[in-house]
Amino acid sequence: MVSNTQIIFSKIPTTFPEVGEHMTIKHDTIDLEAELPENHYIVKTLTLSVDPYMRGRMRAAGTKSYSPAFDLDKPMAGHTVGVIVKSNNDKFKVDDIVYGIGHFAEYTHVPAQLAFLFTPRNEARESGLPLSNYIGVLGMPGMTAYVGLIKFGKPKKGETLYVSAASGAVGQLVGQIGKVLGLHVVGSAGSDEKVAYLKEIGFDGAFNYKTEDTNAKLTELCPNGIDIYFENVGGKMLENVINHSNNFGRIVCCGMISQYNTTNPEPIHNLIQIVSKRLRIEGFIVGEHPEMEADFRKDVTQWLKDGVIQYRETAAEGIESAPQALIDVLKGKNFGKQVVNIASL
Amino acid sequence: MVSNTQIIFSKIPTTFPEVGEHMTIKHDTIDLEAELPENHYIVKTLTLSVDPYMRGRMRAAGTKSYSPAFDLDKPMAGHTVGVIVKSNNDKFKVDDIVYGIGHFAEYTHVPAQLAFLFTPRNEARESGLPLSNYIGVLGMPGMTAYVGLIKFGKPKKGETLYVSAASGAVGQLVGQIGKVLGLHVVGSAGSDEKVAYLKEIGFDGAFNYKTEDTNAKLTELCPNGIDIYFENVGGKMLENVINHSNNFGRIVCCGMISQYNTTNPEPIHNLIQIVSKRLRIEGFIVGEHPEMEADFRKDVTQWLKDGVIQYRETAAEGIESAPQALIDVLKGKNFGKQVVNIASL
Repeated sequence: MVSNTQIIFSKIPTTFPEVGEHMTIKHDTIDLEAELPENHYIVKTLTLSVDPYMRGRMRAAGTKSYSPAFDLDKPMAGHTVGVIVKSNNDKFKVDDIVYGIGHFAEYTHVPAQLAFLFTPRNEARESGLPLSNYIGVLGMPGMTAYVGLIKFGKPKKGETLYVSAASGAVGQLVGQIGKVLGLHVVGSAGSDEKVAYLKEIGFDGAFNYKTEDTNAKLTELCPNGIDIYFENVGGKMLENVINHSNNFGRIVCCGMISQYNTTNPEPIHNLIQIVSKRLRIEGFIVGEHPEMEADFRKDVTQWLKDGVIQYRETAAEGIESAPQALIDVLKGKNFGKQVVNIASL
Repeated sequence: MVSNTQIIFSKIPTTFPEVGEHMTIKHDTIDLEAELPENHYIVKTLTLSVDPYMRGRMRAAGTKSYSPAFDLDKPMAGHTVGVIVKSNNDKFKVDDIVYGIGHFAEYTHVPAQLAFLFTPRNEARESGLPLSNYIGVLGMPGMTAYVGLIKFGKPKKGETLYVSAASGAVGQLVGQIGKVLGLHVVGSAGSDEKVAYLKEIGFDGAFNYKTEDTNAKLTELCPNGIDIYFENVGGKMLENVINHSNNFGRIVCCGMISQYNTTNPEPIHNLIQIVSKRLRIEGFIVGEHPEMEADFRKDVTQWLKDGVIQYRETAAEGIESAPQALIDVLKGKNFGKQVVNIASL
């Protein structure tokens, strides 16, 4: 028996979740010696992704949404990179590096019927890129940026792209892909340090939405109006952007983090501009666009290797730090992609 | 000299316009004997369209929108059917029936540089259809229904279509095209008489949004949720529909009449569902989709001749009734397409 500490979803939150109440730490063990049933395998978690959408899974099981509710009193789950430590499945060999949906836990025992949840990513051993990149810039958040900007934003060279939550896991890549595609790129973030980082990685303009006036900054930094808004925030920010949108503007809705932890959502008053400006406002979920995955991996791996794009991460250490890391993301305390390193290879 | 009574845009309204204040009647004359400069022509107005979007043109000249502001102290203008009574333009012969943008006036003198504003529609003489159809079901409102539902709604057989302002110039055609395409069609309108009409022309369900609870009626009449919403209303109605939308729902924004005459727009609180349901909310202006005009005319003319669709109109009589007819449309007092008959052939 070895330690298999897990993070349990223990209560449904109404606003921000709290460690010890809605997410609790369970010290458990796993038997790595026992024989595995056919097609089962065990993944040792190396690094774990905490992402804003997880707040949406912390709900009552009866409420439908695109991503299933977490089961109460069971381990939470998310994208992980791990290594196979035991396998009775031909597709997964011991020492394979895998990427997929695993428990918030030191180990995930994957039964046959869920074997599809992981895919081997052995190229991670030789790429020279940090393993954590595979849950961030090369994982679900990176692909969210790629699909959202290219497929839904439909960018044309010379257009203006505005990104909120721009230093986050998705936003920082959206902006940098925007530069590769020849756009004028502006971003906002919640600290001067983050704003400085955005300028450093090539954003044409950036501002601190907490200390500066959004409307005035959009006027200054987007003098030709906004053609594409990559929406991560919602609420008043969305209302401001609609006022600055050009005719035929695209508002790509990836998330609305300002509205996740409130029972009193901020209203929008100016939707009449959807008609007058012929705006398109559209939501998407990255998992529904698998046809772009091959291009995404190829392009972003190359851009990383060539140094065309950079990717900032904040790492928490150890499984017990995962709940606080998620709360930090929901409160915007993280800088860049928040990862939780659980073990090393 | 003959009488050429005109309706003048005399003051910018802040809420509903009023006759005699924002729109005033001017008794003028026109000289039909004088020689016309090259390529000029004169149209005698037969029937005139008053439409909700005109409220948007009653604004200060400096405010940009898709449709230019009316000039203060000049005649208002809109879609008309008329007959050429004098011409020095080879493309327009005396007695030609024409369709295009004319003054709110008994006659429109069209200068050479604006000659493109009209097109001959001589088929109107032999079609057996009322002339007023050519500014309604076969004119801009009809094409709005056709383009909006087909190009933006992207209907698939068996889906549920909901139409607000459903007995209006656009809505009644949207619903009937929906039935032709095999959709489950539900509409709302502002009187029991209008609701009865919707059922008579084939809507699967209809309700009076003024006396019945929208949320309860949408639950009852759209048991499989809403796939396409043809949005004419805005405000609270839009918020309700978002709650009833299915995943991948399309909200086609044609107008938001509930918001045209207020300085205090009704806010929307539930846009976070754009992400969770992957909704697409999109505005369009019919004039930007001319590539669909030939199909529109062919299909709708055929459906009318075959009796597959019906089209209700309310006619006001005489140019002096035009201002009140427009106000009636903005207040929802009209039943069906509001036209103003000015003269007969």
